[in-house]
Amino acid sequence: MLSEADNRLLTQTGPGTPMGAFVRRFWLPFLLSEELAEPDGPPVRVRLLGEDLIAFRATDGGVGLVDAFCPHRRAPMFFGRNEECGLRCVYHGWKFDSSGTCVDMPSEPPDSLFKTKVGIKAYPVRDAHGVLWAYLGPVGAAGELPHLVWMDQPAEYRFMGRWLQRSNFVQAIEGELDSSHLSSLHQPLVLDPKLPPTGLGKYVREDTAPTWTIREQPYGLTATARRRADGDRAYFRTNQFLLPFGSLIAPDAGRARMMRFWVPRDDETTLVIAINYHEDRAVSEDEAAGYRAGEYGFCVVRPGTDWPVPGPDNDYLMNRDVQRAKTTTGIPGIRNQDLAMVEGMGARVDRSFEHLGTSDTAIIAMRRTLLSGARDLANGTPPVAAAGGDLYRVRSWSAVLTDAEFAERVDELQLSLPA
Amino acid sequence: MLSEADNRLLTQTGPGTPMGAFVRRFWLPFLLSEELAEPDGPPVRVRLLGEDLIAFRATDGGVGLVDAFCPHRRAPMFFGRNEECGLRCVYHGWKFDSSGTCVDMPSEPPDSLFKTKVGIKAYPVRDAHGVLWAYLGPVGAAGELPHLVWMDQPAEYRFMGRWLQRSNFVQAIEGELDSSHLSSLHQPLVLDPKLPPTGLGKYVREDTAPTWTIREQPYGLTATARRRADGDRAYFRTNQFLLPFGSLIAPDAGRARMMRFWVPRDDETTLVIAINYHEDRAVSEDEAAGYRAGEYGFCVVRPGTDWPVPGPDNDYLMNRDVQRAKTTTGIPGIRNQDLAMVEGMGARVDRSFEHLGTSDTAIIAMRRTLLSGARDLANGTPPVAAAGGDLYRVRSWSAVLTDAEFAERVDELQLSLPA
Amino acid sequence: MLSEADNRLLTQTGPGTPMGAFVRRFWLPFLLSEELAEPDGPPVRVRLLGEDLIAFRATDGGVGLVDAFCPHRRAPMFFGRNEECGLRCVYHGWKFDSSGTCVDMPSEPPDSLFKTKVGIKAYPVRDAHGVLWAYLGPVGAAGELPHLVWMDQPAEYRFMGRWLQRSNFVQAIEGELDSSHLSSLHQPLVLDPKLPPTGLGKYVREDTAPTWTIREQPYGLTATARRRADGDRAYFRTNQFLLPFGSLIAPDAGRARMMRFWVPRDDETTLVIAINYHEDRAVSEDEAAGYRAGEYGFCVVRPGTDWPVPGPDNDYLMNRDVQRAKTTTGIPGIRNQDLAMVEGMGARVDRSFEHLGTSDTAIIAMRRTLLSGARDLANGTPPVAAAGGDLYRVRSWSAVLTDAEFAERVDELQLSLPA
Repeated sequence: MLSEADNRLLTQTGPGTPMGAFVRRFWLPFLLSEELAEPDGPPVRVRLLGEDLIAFRATDGGVGLVDAFCPHRRAPMFFGRNEECGLRCVYHGWKFDSSGTCVDMPSEPPDSLFKTKVGIKAYPVRDAHGVLWAYLGPVGAAGELPHLVWMDQPAEYRFMGRWLQRSNFVQAIEGELDSSHLSSLHQPLVLDPKLPPTGLGKYVREDTAPTWTIREQPYGLTATARRRADGDRAYFRTNQFLLPFGSLIAPDAGRARMMRFWVPRDDETTLVIAINYHEDRAVSEDEAAGYRAGEYGFCVVRPGTDWPVPGPDNDYLMNRDVQRAKTTTGIPGIRNQDLAMVEGMGARVDRSFEHLGTSDTAIIAMRRTLLSGARDLANGTPPVAAAGGDLYRVRSWSAVLTDAEFAERVDELQLSLPA
Repeated sequence: MLSEADNRLLTQTGPGTPMGAFVRRFWLPFLLSEELAEPDGPPVRVRLLGEDLIAFRATDGGVGLVDAFCPHRRAPMFFGRNEECGLRCVYHGWKFDSSGTCVDMPSEPPDSLFKTKVGIKAYPVRDAHGVLWAYLGPVGAAGELPHLVWMDQPAEYRFMGRWLQRSNFVQAIEGELDSSHLSSLHQPLVLDPKLPPTGLGKYVREDTAPTWTIREQPYGLTATARRRADGDRAYFRTNQFLLPFGSLIAPDAGRARMMRFWVPRDDETTLVIAINYHEDRAVSEDEAAGYRAGEYGFCVVRPGTDWPVPGPDNDYLMNRDVQRAKTTTGIPGIRNQDLAMVEGMGARVDRSFEHLGTSDTAIIAMRRTLLSGARDLANGTPPVAAAGGDLYRVRSWSAVLTDAEFAERVDELQLSLPA
Repeated sequence: MLSEADNRLLTQTGPGTPMGAFVRRFWLPFLLSEELAEPDGPPVRVRLLGEDLIAFRATDGGVGLVDAFCPHRRAPMFFGRNEECGLRCVYHGWKFDSSGTCVDMPSEPPDSLFKTKVGIKAYPVRDAHGVLWAYLGPVGAAGELPHLVWMDQPAEYRFMGRWLQRSNFVQAIEGELDSSHLSSLHQPLVLDPKLPPTGLGKYVREDTAPTWTIREQPYGLTATARRRADGDRAYFRTNQFLLPFGSLIAPDAGRARMMRFWVPRDDETTLVIAINYHEDRAVSEDEAAGYRAGEYGFCVVRPGTDWPVPGPDNDYLMNRDVQRAKTTTGIPGIRNQDLAMVEGMGARVDRSFEHLGTSDTAIIAMRRTLLSGARDLANGTPPVAAAGGDLYRVRSWSAVLTDAEFAERVDELQLSLPA
């Protein structure tokens, strides 16, 4: 449970908000590189932290991210012409380069100095590892990009997607870190003896009340859910919360690892960047086809939009007969099941009505980390994690261990192996 | 005319409002029993007095009406699994019975006492006479269900429907009690000599300015409109206003009686429960077919919704050629004509712009009854009518009488005859 | 750039606002006469300066413009019956003539005086020169209709249209007076040697930074954009701003003159009345067909609506391939290009974010004229231009002249020649 004031502090990220200032200290992924591939190609609308922006790939391959409205008379830059290393507003021909500098102002006399005095708001962009990253924070305070495990590997070891979600970003992260709901939301009604003994299988079904170990980390948190396994051994699932909005979920045996960025688009919608990856092999054709069809943490979007097919207007494709006979929800697909819960709370849930239990330990810890980060910055202490780089070279994991083995190996298991 | 303050007092029924507190003292019909017939069948969304709720028929046939959001983390209960005498939130498996008690909390350790400390908001429900009734008022203050005439009769003597309307509930009641508009809104342009001499016929057309007799009643009001008839006799139509939102309209000769509940769904929409009934015979097949087709006070709804087919997007099916040549409005159907007027004012009309005349006497009286009821309760005096029961065993009527006959028989005519 | 306070003063025209009071001193065109042609025909919804109204053509051919809601109980007058020189509310039969007088009140007793005490809000309407004009200002303060050049000519010399736009009226006027954008927004990418040497042709393309001469006029403003032409001659384009919201754009050689009224419908939408006319000949069949197809300043509307086909939901029919190869915008049609800019700023642009240059001189002057007009009226001085009449008998023009010729002929060129 949070007070209404804390709930606002946690969830509001627009210009001038403390959480917005906190998140702006980090690099924010906002598009896949392939979505803005063509130099001088069509500009793309982007909304980040409540700001409307336009992204364009310039002639030299660099990417600009500028105000959606021209500084002259606020004409829409979306209709701009992307040409010769700049985006030209079509209304009066003012042209800006990726840094926001006005490089042509044909509507003023050639000797006018006005051009040197007017720029368009522009944010630095990095194009790295298949993702476009923006920095919306104060000049000079940007750190390195996070150095994530999948960045060290060949591109074919990963599969990426992007879509939008009708919820605040914190709600989205809560849904991801919450190992507890695996025992209910994603379960079939009848035990299938053919399922593997880990992951969503036996242990998760049999021990529905995991206990938690939370460990603060320089980059965020580890949250380990422990469930009874066989004899004196337990099933440990360790998820990572990567500041300010990343998650790494413990993979099932043999399946891909899931990295997700839950980027605040505005206070009621989230931009999701999804990366499934292996550490030791390429994503197979079968796996990729499954991801494209909405399996294993991906979403199929409505044609011409970035919104998922399952939504409030179709009750997330729920089928009550399936719910009655086969699965807890009757909703097809794990991500759709998550979406129905997280969006179904309302876009920004009022946490003053909650009743949290021991199962919510990871969620409580994550909120505390965000809240104290925002408060610390407001008090003058910027976040350590914003330095980025190797801090982020971690993994999630699951394993069946004795408690002694867990205590001994917990630090090692989360580190990425050298390639 | 009402001041803006009185208009708010009259029309706002959300939690914490005086009128909301008043209405919450009564049993509120909200679904037909047949709409939630199947034990362990799909839950249904309900909105009452601005509160979002979920209704479910439990295994034992009882009906639960609970908060639309789980008390744990506000996941949507609509997706809940209706199983073994309870509704289970699919997110973490918390299960609640119809009384709101948490009967299973698998995400917490088996020995946790947390389960005993958390319930879901739940309201008492009665399933009686083909209707589901909810009580949203303070514990211990509920009266009996109203004992209405049609409840004493076989089920085949009545026909029921339910739909939604885009207006505040007071506007809806005003439209129903207003006998005056019969002389205009529902009239053909040319007198049809074949029409019967009562009801919408001769007297209503010839005397367009009825005079009123209003009588306060323990259950609400009677409003009698008097129109000149033949010689020294007059045509009397007596409608009933049944607290807090019911109406009984005087029937035409040989036709069904019309009971309507105008339940506040929120401040801008109304849930209509409609019952046409005879006192002495079954509803015929022809009559039922007509009601299903939208005749005599019923509405046809858009497939997959509870909203009427006629609406603001199709100008209530108005045809200007019909208006020019045949009927006052060119809108087909009496209920659709009413709907065009009541919704067409805007969802919550600003009564400070009105100019009421003698024709509005019934409406003025009904508003006073509601306003004084809400004020009395705020001052500590709960409504007498909330006791329910035989108070409500009344009927509406119309008859051609001398004034002396009216004075003599007015009390007797509104009482239901013993079966 | 304007302060937020000045921006509100400039753009808000609802009841009680200073700019609303200013605009209400003028006659407002709101429908084409042919759109309300039939006596006793269907009433039409009109929205002007934030007020919802109903227009009807009475039996005698006069036009009424009354409140959209009956003064009795606020029933919607749109469904009213237009009959025998009045509009009858269908709810209780109250009937009002074009002056707003209640001429029948059947719901009250025949000897009631109530009828004499209640009228419906009604505004004077003139039907002149193919246009319906309303006066919403104080009684007794109305001037004459503006006497515009096209009013002296045969009806076949002009072509009229009407549609709605999703922007404040000031934004619409700004778009029209801004000669500067011709050099960018409406340009092909490659010079076509076959194009005529004036208008959108050579001079406009070659001199993209026109200089301005603004002259205050009793009826508003003239704004002359000067561009280099050949030798010591320059290309002068003079547009007219006609208070409070009219524009006259300099025509291209041989093509029609364009008069536009940008009437505030409410603060976020504009009602456009468009008149293309010649001074010396009829509009040809080819020209009319082009206007109907959306050419030369006209808009094609979506069937059953008054909204243009190009809109925010289809990116104004933009084609990026066309933008890449052929035209600045890739948007077909000059008016659609304008619409994309003016609506694309948002319905009411925040002018505190602007950066105006010398190219915006005409816009700045027009805003000053409106602002000082509203302020003067608030201080007790009504606008001179509201007198209407021959003040408005002016034209726009373009010509290639020496500066000396311009100085000598500027007053003469804008006067309409005697017929």
